[in-house]
Formats: sequence, C-alpha cells, structure tokens
Amino acid sequence: MSLKHAVLALVAERRGYGYELAQRFEARIGPGWQLSPSAVYPALEQLERSGLVVADVQVRGARQGPRVLYAATPAGNAALETWLHAPVDRPDPVRSELHLRLAFGQPDARPALAVQLTDRIRGCERLLARCAARLHHDEPPNAPARLIAAGVVARLEAELRWLHELRDVLAAERA
Amino acid sequence: MSLKHAVLALVAERRGYGYELAQRFEARIGPGWQLSPSAVYPALEQLERSGLVVADVQVRGARQGPRVLYAATPAGNAALETWLHAPVDRPDPVRSELHLRLAFGQPDARPALAVQLTDRIRGCERLLARCAARLHHDEPPNAPARLIAAGVVARLEAELRWLHELRDVLAAERA
Repeated sequence: MSLKHAVLALVAERRGYGYELAQRFEARIGPGWQLSPSAVYPALEQLERSGLVVADVQVRGARQGPRVLYAATPAGNAALETWLHAPVDRPDPVRSELHLRLAFGQPDARPALAVQLTDRIRGCERLLARCAARLHHDEPPNAPARLIAAGVVARLEAELRWLHELRDVLAAERA
Repeated sequence: MSLKHAVLALVAERRGYGYELAQRFEARIGPGWQLSPSAVYPALEQLERSGLVVADVQVRGARQGPRVLYAATPAGNAALETWLHAPVDRPDPVRSELHLRLAFGQPDARPALAVQLTDRIRGCERLLARCAARLHHDEPPNAPARLIAAGVVARLEAELRWLHELRDVLAAERA
C-alpha cells in the first residue's frame, strides 16, 4: 500500500514537515488507516533518496530545534502524475495477523486467543465509531472523505460480525 | 503483516523450499491473502540473516538445478513460540490503494476511476468465489481454514457492496 505516494501527494500540494504531513494524511484518509506518524519519516527519506522531494532545514527560535521542510521536485511531480493514473483494478489482498495465528497456532493456544478477541472487538468498535463519525462530515455526499469512510465502515462492520462469531466458536471449545 | 513469521512456522513444521512453502502457505490461509510466491524469498533471506533458519543446498539430477531447502534453527523455534503468544488484540488497519486514489486524485480523474471499478468488482467477485469454496471444505466447522475463510468472505462481501455504491456515485458524476 503506497504510503510513499500519498506522502508525495501531500508534499506536492504544499511543502510540509514530518508530523504535520501525518496529520494532513489522517485528515484526508481517516483513522481507519491507523497511520503511525513515525511511518512518514522513512517514506520521506526514501522519496528524498529517489530525488522526488528535497529537504530544507528551517532554523527556528532559540527554544525550538530546527525543522526539516520537504517540497516536491519536478521529478516528484511527474512520479505523482504517473501514480495517479496507475491502474487500481485489482482487488486488495485480505490479510490479517489473526488469520496467521489461527492457521499456525497450536489448538491449546485457542482459549488465550478467545480472551484477546474481547479486547480486539472493543478496539474495533472504537475505531468504527471514529470512522463512522466522518460519514456525517459537513461535506457533499460524494466528497472523498465520505466515500472513503463508507468503505472503511463497511469493512469494519463485517470484521466485527466475524470477530463475534469467532469468539463464540473458540469460547465453546473451552467449555 | 507478518509473512516472515508464517514462513518460519511452515519451515518449523517441516523443512521446505521457496515455491513449495508458498503453496503450503496458500493451502493454509487461502487465496484471499493473494500471496505472491516471490515474496517468500526475501522473507527466507531475512530469516536466514537473523539466524532463525538455515539453508541447505540440495544437488539434484543432471537435468534439474540445485534446490535450497530451509530448516528452522533452535533460535527460530524460540522466535516462533514468542510470536505465537504475542497479542493480537488490536484491530487490523483498514487500508486500500483505492482510498489513497480517492483522496489524492484530481476530480477530472474520477471518470477513469469509475471505469476501473468495473474490473475491480469482477476481480473481487472471482476472489470471493474462490474463498467461499473453502467454507465447504471437508473439515470440521471450527478448523482454521474454515474460520479464516469466513472472515475473508465477510470482508470481501462488504468490499463488493461498497465498490458497487462507489461506482454508481462516480458514474452519476459523469452523466
């Protein structure tokens, strides 16, 4: 999933620094992505090494450290155009750490997994509430943030139904 | 998502070589993951560098090239145990290249996106059919493959409903 390109798009819009770019990313995409702000820095470094962005160190007041501002280069703008026209016709992979744990865990680890599912369900419900709030943003119904939120909410609702069923199955094994 | 650990788990079960491990992975997890068999090789290299697996070059008949067989080391078995008991209590991120393209694409790129959605819907339907087939495997209902398939099918069905809505919205803009 191309975080690198999203960071490039943000920088091309207007120059920015690491943490601020992470905030702009979440404002656009929403909390469903679960962006870790620290993931923005390696993306910026990779873009800089490829010559797609340039870094400009901004010296600030005595009390604040310097800040690194990034801007897109002409090569960066060209790469962005290419990405924005690349095909998105293939379905996303459906992957979860939980699938791996179900497949590779020993049967005697399943009761512990069932216990963890209760926390996972709670976390999923909290995330769903935050994403669903964006469905009612003060924006036109076909604004990107609302279209994205609809997709995220649909996936999370489906995930929650599955998690409840899974917990019931694993809990019944314990009995 | 920890493909590296899944590959380690497969190798710990019994030693294997790249392509065969990819096949065993898909038999366990199903087609929803969309594993690219070539992704197994960097995972094996990383595991080897960390001392978690060892490679053994197997010389075969004159007509076949040598084959590299991998086996788990004691450190690999210990790392596997740690991973199998790591928490899975946090919800998965909900990420899609399509979310990025909606957020960062220009409005005039939306008609082209709507056209691509038709192919994406078809691909998603094909993937769903393959994953749903695993729900009826000749296995107990709480076998890992069936539990995983239920989760994958739920996500893909939700995704398809969203893709249809999204295509309708974007197509209406064109009119």
